[in-house]
Amino acid sequence: MPLRPNRPLPLATPAGVEVLTRILTQGPIPRVQIARRTGLSQAAVTKAVAPLIEAGFVTDEPVAPTEGSGESQLGIGRPVSPLTVLADSVSVIGVKVTPTGLIGVTTDLTAGIRTVRHSPLRDSSTETVIPRIVELARELMDFLDDQANGAGPLIGIGVAVSGDVDAAHGVVRDSPFMGWREVPLAATLTEELGAPVVVTNDVRALTVAEHWFGVGVDADSFAVVTIGSGVGCGLYLNGEVVSGAYGVSGELGHLPLAPGELICTCGRRGCVETVASSDAILARTRETTGRPELDLAGAIELAHAGDEHAREAFDQAGEVIGSALAAMVNLVGPELVVIAGEGVADYDLYEQRMRRAFSAHAFGAAGDCRLMLRSHTFDDWARGAAATVIRSYVRGEPPLQR
Amino acid sequence: MPLRPNRPLPLATPAGVEVLTRILTQGPIPRVQIARRTGLSQAAVTKAVAPLIEAGFVTDEPVAPTEGSGESQLGIGRPVSPLTVLADSVSVIGVKVTPTGLIGVTTDLTAGIRTVRHSPLRDSSTETVIPRIVELARELMDFLDDQANGAGPLIGIGVAVSGDVDAAHGVVRDSPFMGWREVPLAATLTEELGAPVVVTNDVRALTVAEHWFGVGVDADSFAVVTIGSGVGCGLYLNGEVVSGAYGVSGELGHLPLAPGELICTCGRRGCVETVASSDAILARTRETTGRPELDLAGAIELAHAGDEHAREAFDQAGEVIGSALAAMVNLVGPELVVIAGEGVADYDLYEQRMRRAFSAHAFGAAGDCRLMLRSHTFDDWARGAAATVIRSYVRGEPPLQR
Ligand SMILES: [Zn+2]
Ligand SMILES: [Zn+2]
Repeated sequence: MPLRPNRPLPLATPAGVEVLTRILTQGPIPRVQIARRTGLSQAAVTKAVAPLIEAGFVTDEPVAPTEGSGESQLGIGRPVSPLTVLADSVSVIGVKVTPTGLIGVTTDLTAGIRTVRHSPLRDSSTETVIPRIVELARELMDFLDDQANGAGPLIGIGVAVSGDVDAAHGVVRDSPFMGWREVPLAATLTEELGAPVVVTNDVRALTVAEHWFGVGVDADSFAVVTIGSGVGCGLYLNGEVVSGAYGVSGELGHLPLAPGELICTCGRRGCVETVASSDAILARTRETTGRPELDLAGAIELAHAGDEHAREAFDQAGEVIGSALAAMVNLVGPELVVIAGEGVADYDLYEQRMRRAFSAHAFGAAGDCRLMLRSHTFDDWARGAAATVIRSYVRGEPPLQR
Repeated sequence: MPLRPNRPLPLATPAGVEVLTRILTQGPIPRVQIARRTGLSQAAVTKAVAPLIEAGFVTDEPVAPTEGSGESQLGIGRPVSPLTVLADSVSVIGVKVTPTGLIGVTTDLTAGIRTVRHSPLRDSSTETVIPRIVELARELMDFLDDQANGAGPLIGIGVAVSGDVDAAHGVVRDSPFMGWREVPLAATLTEELGAPVVVTNDVRALTVAEHWFGVGVDADSFAVVTIGSGVGCGLYLNGEVVSGAYGVSGELGHLPLAPGELICTCGRRGCVETVASSDAILARTRETTGRPELDLAGAIELAHAGDEHAREAFDQAGEVIGSALAAMVNLVGPELVVIAGEGVADYDLYEQRMRRAFSAHAFGAAGDCRLMLRSHTFDDWARGAAATVIRSYVRGEPPLQR
C-alpha cells in the first residue's frame, strides 16, 4: 500500500513551536494576543507565523465556520483576521485498545473526530490484537487516501493502552487488563504500517487531549479522572502532563483507601478499585443480592429501581471515589477535576455520595476545586491517542521529530 | 535604624536569570556547560555573565575553598575557571515561626547558614509573636550591619509559617498550629523593618531549599515529606514547586488513610495525622500505657525499651505514613522522596513498618522511588525561608522585583 509522505511542519525554533501551539489550542487568535501571552515581540510572532501560512497550516484570512472546509478564500486588501489553523492540513489516526475491542478514529489537526470505526476482539492476546490493529489502521489509512474524503495527509498513528506504557520506547510494559507484558507495540506497528506510531497510556492520552483541546486551554492545572472498569487519573501541573519518574503516575485506582481485607486485581490490599471499579460494583451487587447472573446493566437497573443492596454497592463506590478525589486534590491542588465516567448514566447513583465524601476530606481551600462530571465514550480514548500524535508532531518529538 | 539598601542584581533578561540560577545551584560550572544545559549559545551565556562578574555576584577566578571568604584574588593572565557565585555578595534572613519559639538564621546567597538565633515564645498570639519576630530580625540585621562580620548587604527577610499561607499577598490565611487566621504578616513586618519580607508556607519553603540547594540539583522531580507535630509534603514536578490552584497542596497529613473514627485537629475524620503526628503518637501511648504524665521523649524511651504499647503507637504511625507515601508516589511519581523527621532519633521506631507499608501499596515501578531519611532541625525550616527570598531575588519576583 503506498503510504502518503508525512507533511513536515516548517518549525525551526522554540518560538515557532510556541506560536503554532497557541494558534492550535487558543485560536482564532490575533498576533498581538500571541505576543502578549508568550512574551515574544510582535515581530517575532509575525516571523514565526509566515512560514506556517505559506505552507498552508495557518491562515489569517476569515475561515468559514462550516466544519471541515479548510479552503481559504483569497482576500487581498481585506483587514487581517485572527490566526486560525487549517484543520484539514493533516490527518491523524487514533486507536484505543480494550480487551473486547478496538476503537479507531481519524481526526484533523485540531483533534476533531472525522471518522470512527469499532472492531470487536474475540480475545486480548497479542496474536489476535496486533493484526486487528494493523487491519483497522489500514482501513482508516485507505479512507484518508481516498481523495474524495478531502482529508489531509496522515502524520502518524497513536495507540492508547491501559497500564504501564513506556511511551519513549513504544513498549507496553505491563497492561493487566490486556494481559500484556513487555510488548514492543510501536516497533511492530511501524514496521507493518510504514507510518510513525506513538504508543501511550490511555489516561495520559486523554489528559493530553484535555490539555490542548479541552479544559486545559483555560485552566492552569487540572486532573482527569476516569471511572469505569478501572479508575485512572491524569494530572496537568506546572505546564506539563505529569508522567512519573518511573513511568507511573495518576494511579488513583490503587490508592489504599478501601477496606484492607479487599484484594485488588493488582494483588495489593485495599485499593480504590476493589470497591469502585465497575467489576467491583457488579461483584458486590451479585453477592449481596444473591443473583450471580446479573450484568452491569442489570445492577444499574436494580439500583435505579431502589434495591438497597445494589444501591449500597454504588454508595460505597461513591464514598471511596470521593475520598480518593480529596486525597489527590489535597496533594496536588488542581484548578479543576474532570471526571470522565464510562457510563454517564450511572453518575446519579454515586454522585451525591462522591461529592459528600470529597467535601468531607478536602482540606481547606482545596474544597473549592471544581468537580466536572463529563460524559465519556470510548471514542474519546481514541481521540486522546490522536491528540498525543498531534502534540509530538508540533513539538517535533520522536517518532515525529523534524 | 538605618537600613542598608538592597543590592540590585544586574539581570535584564530571562536568559540572565537562567544563567545565574545555574551558577548558583550547579556551580562551579563552566560557561560551555551552562550553554549545553540551557540551550543558550555560548555567546549568550558570556553576555549574561559579564554584568554579574562586574557587579561582584559571580567570579570566574579560582575561589578559595575556605568558607565565607568572598574575596576574589586578582588573576590576570591565568586560565579561566568555572563560574562560581560569590556567596557573601548579599545576606538573607530566614525565620521559622512555631507556637513555642522563633528560629532565625542569616544565610549567604547560597543559603549557607551563617548565624542562628533561637527565641522562645510564651504564647502564639499575634500580639506576642509579631513583636518578637521584629525584635529577632532587628538583632540579625544589626549583626549583618556590623562590618566586622563581613556579611553582604541584606536583600530580604523570609518568614515560614505552617498552614495555608497566601504567599502572593504575604497573608497567613489559616495556621491551626499558631491559631492565626488572616494575618497580614508581610505588610506588618515590612512596615516595621523597612526591608522586603516574603511570607511562605514552611513546607513549601523547605521544598524551595531542596530544589535550589539540595536534592533538586540532581533530581528532575522530588517530594519532601516532613514528619513531626504535623505531617507535610512539598512537591517539585515539571520544573516547579507545586503550589496548588487554591493555595493548598501537599497536605499529606490530611489524606483520609487512618481509621475513620479518629478525628483530626483539623476537624476531619481519618486524617494521617490522627495516628502519625507526634502528638497523636504521644496521646496513644499515654492512653494504652495508662500514663497520662508521659512526654514525647518518655514515649520514645518506652518504645526503645520495648514496651509493647508504646511500640504499637509508633508501628501504627509507620504503617499510615508508609501508606501515605505510597498514595503520593502512586499519584505523582517523584524520582525520590526526602523524609525530614523532626527527631531523626525516632526513625528506627517506625522506619521498618513505614517502608513495608510503602512497598505493599506502591504501584509497579513506583516502588523504585527512593525514600531518603534525613535528619532535620528547626534551623532547616528557617533556611528554607531564606532560600525562598533568594529565589525571589534571582527571579525578580515580588517583593524583590527589579
Ligand atoms: Zn490495586
Ligand atoms: Zn486533618
